Amino acid sequence: MDSPRDIRLAIRRGEWRKPTSGLAWGYAQANLVVIRKEFAYDFLLFAQRNPKPCPLLEVLDIGNPHTKIVADDADIRTDIPLYRVYKSGKLVDEPDNILDYWRDDLVAFLLGCSFSFEYALMDAGVPLRHVEADRNVPMYITNIETVPAGILRGPLVVSMRPIPHELVVRAVNITARFPSVHGAPVHVGYPEVIGIKDINSPDFGDPPLMKDGDVPVFWACGVTPQAVAMASGVDFMITHSPGHMFITDVKNTEFSVF
Amino acid sequence: MDSPRDIRLAIRRGEWRKPTSGLAWGYAQANLVVIRKEFAYDFLLFAQRNPKPCPLLEVLDIGNPHTKIVADDADIRTDIPLYRVYKSGKLVDEPDNILDYWRDDLVAFLLGCSFSFEYALMDAGVPLRHVEADRNVPMYITNIETVPAGILRGPLVVSMRPIPHELVVRAVNITARFPSVHGAPVHVGYPEVIGIKDINSPDFGDPPLMKDGDVPVFWACGVTPQAVAMASGVDFMITHSPGHMFITDVKNTEFSVF
Repeated sequence: MDSPRDIRLAIRRGEWRKPTSGLAWGYAQANLVVIRKEFAYDFLLFAQRNPKPCPLLEVLDIGNPHTKIVADDADIRTDIPLYRVYKSGKLVDEPDNILDYWRDDLVAFLLGCSFSFEYALMDAGVPLRHVEADRNVPMYITNIETVPAGILRGPLVVSMRPIPHELVVRAVNITARFPSVHGAPVHVGYPEVIGIKDINSPDFGDPPLMKDGDVPVFWACGVTPQAVAMASGVDFMITHSPGHMFITDVKNTEFSVF
Repeated sequence: MDSPRDIRLAIRRGEWRKPTSGLAWGYAQANLVVIRKEFAYDFLLFAQRNPKPCPLLEVLDIGNPHTKIVADDADIRTDIPLYRVYKSGKLVDEPDNILDYWRDDLVAFLLGCSFSFEYALMDAGVPLRHVEADRNVPMYITNIETVPAGILRGPLVVSMRPIPHELVVRAVNITARFPSVHGAPVHVGYPEVIGIKDINSPDFGDPPLMKDGDVPVFWACGVTPQAVAMASGVDFMITHSPGHMFITDVKNTEFSVF
């Protein structure tokens, strides 16, 4: 199997432009958020106050695009297959590298991704309906407000996985072991309680496939910081393009706290 | 029993000037670090990179001395029995409030305190030698470097508790449940491996009392951020005075993640 580093270098050379799901099996993938240093304190504080949607794996120094902690000298400007560039909250570009956008006043944040706990769930025999159907996970904007920080405020975004009722306890316990990749669910059972009017119309991703006896289980989602940053009028932001993640050198199992 | 709020108000009125150990039994106590906003990003990033010594419970907004999350409208300028004021890394004052020192460019950080997991250890039948002897816990500067952030760098400080060998596994498991109050040990067994030359000469606190069959177990310590801030030449910092903690409205048990 190719190492995470080999895969990052192939991505850097432009040889992989697709979603990263299934690549470097067993290794954690990460969300990217890049903002100007003027708002970096607000974002760091927002993540501290909202650790479930914003579990920080690594914060790079101001102006530095090279990782130290989650990957050995990766370059976050080139090692992700596809990026999104936002200006004043609007998507303006979707480039395959951000070398031309990089500036010395930018700060890059890498956040944990639910791929890591999905690996643990499947390993423990918990079926994932969206994986079975080769779809994206459904995501919803909730009525749960995040804790504001500086200019940043907005609603929590959650992902939903239908879990067979007899496996809900197992799914809660397994994901609780992974706080740095969103951790335990934020809600089990009643979409309307958290402000979701129609479970079949997610705000992001694909509609869910529920089987008989499935219970909807909701986890805090890494889309939250992007949604909040956009809703808060951040003037400039770069993220990965959904599904096109940063591949780390850290095994998913290393995020287990017990 | 007096509520945490009643105790904070008594402290505010000047009716309690002693260490807070044993006050508001069952409720978490917190370390205080106050620094200028110029270095707040560095400290927040340092805490993100070093969560074991620096588990953040609440970061107040710039210039705001009133807590929102861990206590209902407490005032961190008056609700701690004794403070320490440092200038250019030197202790210059030990006042019973910091009203005269407070400025609009200061940021207050409240950090988890090992009192919370000691409660859980004692509750589970793990004896604590320093509590039995009514002493302070011994603390040591190690050869483990923290992960630097901005101007902040320095060694990890650990606390040591002698644990009966047959209870070491239990002590590890219990404290692992409390990541927001330092979590699982950083080392078990060999002081010299982490750079401690003489276990009987701690750098802070009182010498240890080891009984036959006790194993030295080391946890990351909340003195680390103070030591690092001093070693890093921060020009102005206020902390609580050791043992004189901030009493929160949060029950220790609420910090348990499983």
